[in-house]
Amino acid sequence: MKIKVIMPITSDVFNEEIREEFKHYVGPHDSFDVENLDYGPASIESEFDEAMAIPDILNKVKKAQEDGFDGVIIDCFGDPGVNAARELVDIPVCGGFEPAMQIALGLGKNIGIVTVLPNVVSMLQDLISKMGIEKRVKSIRYVNIPVLDLGDKKKLEDALFNQSLEAIKNDHVQVVVLGCTGMMGMAHNLMKRLKEAGYDVPVVDPAFAAAMMVKNYVYMGLKHSRLTYMTPPVKPYKWWE
Amino acid sequence: MKIKVIMPITSDVFNEEIREEFKHYVGPHDSFDVENLDYGPASIESEFDEAMAIPDILNKVKKAQEDGFDGVIIDCFGDPGVNAARELVDIPVCGGFEPAMQIALGLGKNIGIVTVLPNVVSMLQDLISKMGIEKRVKSIRYVNIPVLDLGDKKKLEDALFNQSLEAIKNDHVQVVVLGCTGMMGMAHNLMKRLKEAGYDVPVVDPAFAAAMMVKNYVYMGLKHSRLTYMTPPVKPYKWWE
Amino acid sequence: MKIKVIMPITSDVFNEEIREEFKHYVGPHDSFDVENLDYGPASIESEFDEAMAIPDILNKVKKAQEDGFDGVIIDCFGDPGVNAARELVDIPVCGGFEPAMQIALGLGKNIGIVTVLPNVVSMLQDLISKMGIEKRVKSIRYVNIPVLDLGDKKKLEDALFNQSLEAIKNDHVQVVVLGCTGMMGMAHNLMKRLKEAGYDVPVVDPAFAAAMMVKNYVYMGLKHSRLTYMTPPVKPYKWWE
Amino acid sequence: MKIKVIMPITSDVFNEEIREEFKHYVGPHDSFDVENLDYGPASIESEFDEAMAIPDILNKVKKAQEDGFDGVIIDCFGDPGVNAARELVDIPVCGGFEPAMQIALGLGKNIGIVTVLPNVVSMLQDLISKMGIEKRVKSIRYVNIPVLDLGDKKKLEDALFNQSLEAIKNDHVQVVVLGCTGMMGMAHNLMKRLKEAGYDVPVVDPAFAAAMMVKNYVYMGLKHSRLTYMTPPVKPYKWWE
Amino acid sequence: MKIKVIMPITSDVFNEEIREEFKHYVGPHDSFDVENLDYGPASIESEFDEAMAIPDILNKVKKAQEDGFDGVIIDCFGDPGVNAARELVDIPVCGGFEPAMQIALGLGKNIGIVTVLPNVVSMLQDLISKMGIEKRVKSIRYVNIPVLDLGDKKKLEDALFNQSLEAIKNDHVQVVVLGCTGMMGMAHNLMKRLKEAGYDVPVVDPAFAAAMMVKNYVYMGLKHSRLTYMTPPVKPYKWWE
Amino acid sequence: MKIKVIMPITSDVFNEEIREEFKHYVGPHDSFDVENLDYGPASIESEFDEAMAIPDILNKVKKAQEDGFDGVIIDCFGDPGVNAARELVDIPVCGGFEPAMQIALGLGKNIGIVTVLPNVVSMLQDLISKMGIEKRVKSIRYVNIPVLDLGDKKKLEDALFNQSLEAIKNDHVQVVVLGCTGMMGMAHNLMKRLKEAGYDVPVVDPAFAAAMMVKNYVYMGLKHSRLTYMTPPVKPYKWWE
Repeated sequence: MKIKVIMPITSDVFNEEIREEFKHYVGPHDSFDVENLDYGPASIESEFDEAMAIPDILNKVKKAQEDGFDGVIIDCFGDPGVNAARELVDIPVCGGFEPAMQIALGLGKNIGIVTVLPNVVSMLQDLISKMGIEKRVKSIRYVNIPVLDLGDKKKLEDALFNQSLEAIKNDHVQVVVLGCTGMMGMAHNLMKRLKEAGYDVPVVDPAFAAAMMVKNYVYMGLKHSRLTYMTPPVKPYKWWE
Repeated sequence: MKIKVIMPITSDVFNEEIREEFKHYVGPHDSFDVENLDYGPASIESEFDEAMAIPDILNKVKKAQEDGFDGVIIDCFGDPGVNAARELVDIPVCGGFEPAMQIALGLGKNIGIVTVLPNVVSMLQDLISKMGIEKRVKSIRYVNIPVLDLGDKKKLEDALFNQSLEAIKNDHVQVVVLGCTGMMGMAHNLMKRLKEAGYDVPVVDPAFAAAMMVKNYVYMGLKHSRLTYMTPPVKPYKWWE
Repeated sequence: MKIKVIMPITSDVFNEEIREEFKHYVGPHDSFDVENLDYGPASIESEFDEAMAIPDILNKVKKAQEDGFDGVIIDCFGDPGVNAARELVDIPVCGGFEPAMQIALGLGKNIGIVTVLPNVVSMLQDLISKMGIEKRVKSIRYVNIPVLDLGDKKKLEDALFNQSLEAIKNDHVQVVVLGCTGMMGMAHNLMKRLKEAGYDVPVVDPAFAAAMMVKNYVYMGLKHSRLTYMTPPVKPYKWWE
Repeated sequence: MKIKVIMPITSDVFNEEIREEFKHYVGPHDSFDVENLDYGPASIESEFDEAMAIPDILNKVKKAQEDGFDGVIIDCFGDPGVNAARELVDIPVCGGFEPAMQIALGLGKNIGIVTVLPNVVSMLQDLISKMGIEKRVKSIRYVNIPVLDLGDKKKLEDALFNQSLEAIKNDHVQVVVLGCTGMMGMAHNLMKRLKEAGYDVPVVDPAFAAAMMVKNYVYMGLKHSRLTYMTPPVKPYKWWE
Repeated sequence: MKIKVIMPITSDVFNEEIREEFKHYVGPHDSFDVENLDYGPASIESEFDEAMAIPDILNKVKKAQEDGFDGVIIDCFGDPGVNAARELVDIPVCGGFEPAMQIALGLGKNIGIVTVLPNVVSMLQDLISKMGIEKRVKSIRYVNIPVLDLGDKKKLEDALFNQSLEAIKNDHVQVVVLGCTGMMGMAHNLMKRLKEAGYDVPVVDPAFAAAMMVKNYVYMGLKHSRLTYMTPPVKPYKWWE
Repeated sequence: MKIKVIMPITSDVFNEEIREEFKHYVGPHDSFDVENLDYGPASIESEFDEAMAIPDILNKVKKAQEDGFDGVIIDCFGDPGVNAARELVDIPVCGGFEPAMQIALGLGKNIGIVTVLPNVVSMLQDLISKMGIEKRVKSIRYVNIPVLDLGDKKKLEDALFNQSLEAIKNDHVQVVVLGCTGMMGMAHNLMKRLKEAGYDVPVVDPAFAAAMMVKNYVYMGLKHSRLTYMTPPVKPYKWWE
C-alpha cells in the first residue's frame, strides 16, 4: 500500500517530524511519501488560507492518482480541498477532521476539540454541521498558539493539558480530539497526564486517524461514493501559470 | 450606494443579461459594477470549479474594498469564497445561497430548491447544514441543464415549472428557490404559471435576493461579525503569478 | 411604497419616537403610517398580552390592505398575529422577530438575543423552534426592564451593553439581536461600545430589520406562500362589539 | 375531581356528543362541565380562527379557577390559548395536541397525525416544533372535511381509515393520532379496522388524551412550571365590552 | 384494573416502601402486585446491571400477562427491558424514564433530570436520544448517592434540593424529573422547598408517572404499536436453568 | 494483535464461513479466535433476542480480556451488549453497527441500510439516534430473509441488489451499509452489480468494518472513554447457574 501525504502548506518546518511520525502511523507494511505545496500559504489558520492552498492541493491529488498511489492524506485538520479532490480521483482521500471524528465517534459519547487559534472555530463548526454530528461535539477550545509556533512542545503540551481539563470539567467532554495535524506526537503523553489527573479519556491524533482511515478504505476495497462526489463536467479553465 | 458584482467565472456569456437585470435589482438610487474573473473556470458546477474560482474572487473582493465599493455580490448560488472574503474585508459580502434562503425563510414554512445539475446537490446540502436550516428545506431538485446552456429560456422555464410542480406536489414545498444565479429573469413568469396551475407560491431569484441583502446591510450600517470571520493571521504566500 | 406600521399596544408613549425612527428605517423614497391599537394591552410582555392584542391587530391589517398599503409591519418582537394576518391578506406582513433573525443569519454564526423581561424567554424559544434555527441561537438574555420603562435610554443602553458582553464572553455569541422593538435607536451606539471593548460584532435592531424585509418583499414582487398561509374558511364569528 | 371542558367555538353542534363522550373519558369518579364560547368563531380551522377564539377562552379559564375547578381542558387539537392560560392560572390546563402527543410518545416510534383540512397543517408543524418532537412525527395527513361536517360519521371513518392506511404504508407511521377533537368516538373502530387490515397500531383520540393528562396532573398534585409560564405583569387593557 | 409492579433488582430493601407508595400511586380503585427479581443484580447503576436484570424481567412480564394483569410497570428509571417486553406481550408495559418524560413534557419548556450516580448519565443521554426529545432536556445532574443508600431520606432530600437549585439557576431548568425510582416520596417536599426558595417548579416522580401512564393506556384501551414492537420470530433458546 | 470474535448466537451455522472471512478481514499479521455463545438465542432478530444474548456475551468479553486478547468483536449488527462490555473491560470492544457507520460516514453524504427483517428497523432507528447521526441516514430497508436463511447466497444477493437500487433511486442513498453481519462476502459483488447498473457507490460490510475499527484502536493505543463507560459499582448478583 502506497500513501501520498500532502502537507498543504508551503512551509517545510514540519517535514522531518512528519516523516518520523508517519512511519509509526502507516506501520512497517505500507509506504508513504510526504510532499509540500509549491503554491499556497505558509500555514492554514483561516478560510482565506484554505482557499489559497486548495488549487495546488488538487494538482497534487490528481498527480498522486496518476503516479499510482493507493490513497491520499491531505494533512490538515480543516479538510481543505477534500470534497473537490474526491470529485477528481477514484482513490480514497482523507483530511484530518473527518477521520479524527470517525475514530472519536466509537470511543465515547461527548467529544471535544482542542485546536490552535480562535480564527478556526467557525470553520470547525461548519465541518461539524456538514458531517451532521452536532449532537456529539460538546466543545471547541483552542490553545492560542499559531501553527508555526507548535514546535515548542512543552508549551503546547501544557496548553493542551489545561484546555482538555477545562473541556472535561466544564463542557462534559469525554473524548478529546486534537484540532490540528501539527499537534503530532502529543496524544499519548496527554492521555497519560489526563489519566494521572483522574480522567481516563482517549485523545485522538488527527494525522494518525487519517492514516488509519485511508488504510481502512484501501484495505477494504472502498472509495467515496460517486453519487456524492460526481466527476466535474469538462470545461475550460484559465490559470496564472 | 456602490455595489460590486463579481461574476465568478471566466465566461462572459451572461454579462449583458446581468447588467440589464441588476439595473432592476439594485434600483435607480444605487450604482453597480459587473466584473468577470481573469482566472478560474468557465462555469461553476462542482466543488472543483469552486476551488478554482475562489482565489481570483478573493483578489477582486479585496480590490472592491480598496476601490471604495460599499458592498460585494459574488454572483453564484454556491456562495464560493464568501466566508474567506468576509475574513478579508469590512464591507458586506453576499453570494446567492444565503440571501436567497434569508428571503425565503420569511415567505413560507417548507422551502424547495430547483438547481441545474445533480453534481451540485451535495454542495447545497452542505450549505443548508452550515446555515443550520435543515428543518426548513424539504427538497433539492434539478433541471439537468448545464449552466452555460441556460440561455435557452423556453426550455429552462418549462423545466423549472415541471420540477417546481413536482416539488410542490410530492415534497410538500411551499416556497421555491431558484438554485442558480444564471436563472435570472425567470422568477416572475414561473410564479405566474404556478399560480395558474393552482399553487400561489413565491419564487425567489437568488441574484435579486443577493442585491437586496447587500443593500439592507449597507443601509442598516451593518457588516459581518468579526468574531465569526476573523482577519487572517499575516504570513507568506507563494503564488503562480 | 406605502407601509403601514401597526404599534400593537394601546399605549402611545412610543409613537413620536417611532415616527422619527421610521423616517430613517424606510428612507426618503417610501412613506409610512403609524397606528396604535384601539383594543388590547398597554404593552406586550406575555402570551396573555399577545392574545389580547391580536384581534385588533388583525382588524388593522385587513384595513391596511383595503386602504391600499403595500406592506404591513406589526411592530413587536414577538411577531403577534403575523401568521393569522398572512392568512387574511395578500400583502407582505412582518413582525420584529422573523426579520431580525433573517438579517442576523447573514452576519455571523452564533446569534444571541437580549430582550426585556424573563417572562418572554419561553415565547422566544418557541419562535426560534418554529423558525427552525435552533442551531444558530446560542443565548437569550434580558435587561429586566419592563417595556414601558424603556424610555430611560441611559439605563437601557448600559444594561444592553452588559448583557451583550456576557453573551459574547460566556455564550459564544457573535451577533447581537435586540429582543424588543421598543429598543429603537440603540443598535449603533451599542455596536460602537462593544467594538471599543474589543468585540467587533453587529447589533440588529428588529424594527429596522422589519422595515427592510417588508420593503424587500414589496420591491421583489413577493408575498408569503398561500400554501403555508391559506385563506381561512368562511364561517360566522361572534364578537363583543 | 372537577374538570372544566371549554369548547372553544361558538357553535354548539358538538355539545351533546361531547357530554356523552366525556362521561367515558373522565370516568365515574370525576365530574366535568362543558361550556361553549360566547365570542369567537363557529369552528377553528385557521390561525385567524384561533386568534378570535383565544380572548374568550382565557376569560373562561380564569373563571374556571375562580369557580373551584381542579383542571381545564381547552377542547381543540390546536391548543389555542393554552400557553396564555397557563400564565393566568395555577390549575392544570390542557388542549388536545400536547396530551395526544404525550400519550402517543409511549406507544411506538413513528407517529402520524390525520387532521381535517390542509389549512391547519402548518399550524401542526409549528406545534410539533415547539414541543421539540420533530424526530418522532413522520406524517401529517388530512381527510379534507371541514370541522362542522364531521357529523357524517361513516364518511369520516372511511376517510380516516384510508388516510391512516396511506400513512402506515407510505410514511412508515406506527401510531396514529386523530388531529381534531371533533373526531370523538372514532379511535376504537378505526383501530379495529386497521388491525383487520393487518396493522395492529394504536389510534389516539386527543380529547380522551386531554382528559387523562389533566386528571394525571391533578391526581399527582402537579401543575405547569411558573418559570416557563410566568404571571403576566399587571397593566391596563382596553376591550370592546 | 390489576397492575404488576416488577422491582427489577434482587434486593428487597425497597419493597415495604414501594407497597406503601404504590397504594397512593394507583389509587383506591385499582390493585397492584409488587415482585422482585429472582435472578439479577442487587441494584441497577450501569448498563451491565441492566443487562443482568433484563432476562428475569422478561420472564416476569410474560408471566404477568399469563396471570391476567392489565399492565406492567418495570420499576426502574432506566427502562430496562421495556422494548423487549413490548415485543413479548399485548398489555401496556412502562418503565420509569419514558412516563416521567411524557408527564414532564406538558409541564414546562426546559426539563432537568437529577439522578443517583455519574455512571448512569450516558445511559440517560441514550434514552433521551432514542425518545427524540433532546431539545427539551437541558441538564442531567446526580446526587452521587448509590441506589441502595437512598434510604437516608434527609441526606437524599438535601442533595436533591441542592442539585435542583443548581439546575434551575445554571442550566435554565424549569421542570425537575427525579432520575431514580428509588427516590419515592421525595417529589412533593422537594417542590415545596424549591417554591420557598422562589422557584415554583413541578417535580416529577418517575414511579408515580409510570403508574399514571400504565393506567392511562389500560383505561383508554391502548397498547404499544405492533409495527414498532413486533413479535420476535420463534426460534430455539438455550439458558442456564 | 489477537482479536476475539464473539458470535453472539448459539447456532454454529455461520462458524466456518466466519473463520474464512475473518482471515481476510484481519489480514495476515493478526490472529483471531471465533467463539459462539453457550447460552442465548439461535439468532438475533428482535430486542428480546438481544436481551437473551447479552449476559453470555458479557461473560465472554470479560474472559477475552483475562485471556490476553487485544480487542473484541461482538459479531452482530445490533451492537448487543457493546456498551455494557465497555464498562467491564479496558480493551476495545466493537459490534457491527457503530463501525459500519464510522466507515460509511467518510464515503458519502446519504447513507442507507439494508437489513434482514422489519422486526429490527426500530432497533436500528434507536442505534442511529444514540449515535447522533440521524441527518446522515436516509433509509432503512430490509430483504425480508431471516438470519438463519441467509445461506442462500443467490437469493440474498438479488434481494440486496434490488433493495439497494430502490434506496438509491427513491431515498437518495449514496452509500449502502449491509445491515446484518450474516451478509458476509456480499459487499464486493453487490458493489460491482450496482456499478454496472450505473451507480458507483460503496457498500460497507459491517463485520469487515468491525475488524478494521478494532484494529485501528489497538494500533493507535486507544480504548473507549472511561467517563462514558464507567466501571460498574461492585454489588451482589444472583444467577441461574
